[in-house]
Amino acid sequence: MRGWKAGTISARSCWRSQVDRLTLHEDPRSGNCYKIKLTAALLGLPLEVRQYDIMKGETRTPEFLAQVNSNGRIPVLQIGDSFLPESNAACWFLAEGSDLIPGDRFQRADMLRWMFFEQYNHEPNVATLRFWLHFIGEPNLSDQQRAQLIAKRIAGCDALTLMDRHLADRDWFVGTGASLADIALYAYTHVAEEGGFGLGDYPAIGRWLERVSTLPGYVPMS
Amino acid sequence: MRGWKAGTISARSCWRSQVDRLTLHEDPRSGNCYKIKLTAALLGLPLEVRQYDIMKGETRTPEFLAQVNSNGRIPVLQIGDSFLPESNAACWFLAEGSDLIPGDRFQRADMLRWMFFEQYNHEPNVATLRFWLHFIGEPNLSDQQRAQLIAKRIAGCDALTLMDRHLADRDWFVGTGASLADIALYAYTHVAEEGGFGLGDYPAIGRWLERVSTLPGYVPMS
Repeated sequence: MRGWKAGTISARSCWRSQVDRLTLHEDPRSGNCYKIKLTAALLGLPLEVRQYDIMKGETRTPEFLAQVNSNGRIPVLQIGDSFLPESNAACWFLAEGSDLIPGDRFQRADMLRWMFFEQYNHEPNVATLRFWLHFIGEPNLSDQQRAQLIAKRIAGCDALTLMDRHLADRDWFVGTGASLADIALYAYTHVAEEGGFGLGDYPAIGRWLERVSTLPGYVPMS
Repeated sequence: MRGWKAGTISARSCWRSQVDRLTLHEDPRSGNCYKIKLTAALLGLPLEVRQYDIMKGETRTPEFLAQVNSNGRIPVLQIGDSFLPESNAACWFLAEGSDLIPGDRFQRADMLRWMFFEQYNHEPNVATLRFWLHFIGEPNLSDQQRAQLIAKRIAGCDALTLMDRHLADRDWFVGTGASLADIALYAYTHVAEEGGFGLGDYPAIGRWLERVSTLPGYVPMS
């Protein structure tokens, strides 16, 4: 268990006193967990952490499935006695009322657009290849996994290319400042080389990664 | 092009006059497109429709990629001159300020949790098998697609089982009324049998499907 130092993203309303104790159920190797820690750090929110080893099946135990998440996955953000799975939903919960969610209606929806893109087009390819190649190891992959390597490589490159083009003439994914869209996409993009993606091919992404890493309150992945 | 009749879900603020003309770029066979039409119908929002045939590559033309969505996908909700891809983000845009988004902070994030679950655990399995088996046809699948049939069947059944257990003792996914979580999950669940999923195995889902289909303003998929 540890807390995170205060960040300096301004909150539009001071709601810290209104929420219960926050506990993140996580595996520190997971970019999805890191999103939530980075959001909390940028907002200066204290977050306790309970760690699980997904490689040892610690999120598939009967206790975890009954009490934390019936989907057997981390991260889960615990707010008092309530449990909130899905990384991007947890980031939304933490950031409501802060400048990490745009005040403009279209921009707010456009931020969610990039967060859904992240979960549909980016994470299943960029994060999955990182997990397979960096943590499981190519010799240990199943035939089923091995058969998907090329398709996931192509789809991951497509997602990175789309991001690079979007960032070519702007600093942030939505509007003029960092939002949850940047945090969601940063998490697995900045470690994409662990999945065999060459980030040198995406110069606008490279500049944006640097921009995110210098936000006040930023914390590294581990 | 056609409009949708008015629904009776109450809007907390009358914002219809505040937004520009709404046009949905869609393929009517897509459940992701249907989500947006159902949301608009329940809210009584007029929505114009421009149809594309995804089987003929009409969302991969240079014009579509340049003007509508660089990701080459539908649906895209056009709001005046702005384009918003990702079905669940478009539903969010339409429903802001209405009872389809809970007023409670935790419930609002929990609704997004189910919408991210839908795009990560449900759609890539339940919707993809429907597309492969009902529209492409099993004899026409690639070896790559065929190799994924069993894994997608298992993952789709897991998603439906999780939904069925969640609905066993409640009427709606979040809180005490219909929200965007129900609309997002309804779209491909109610046609899951076209993907070979037997809905008779999920009695709580069956009762919930009936509940959604009797909401005031409900429109069928096509």
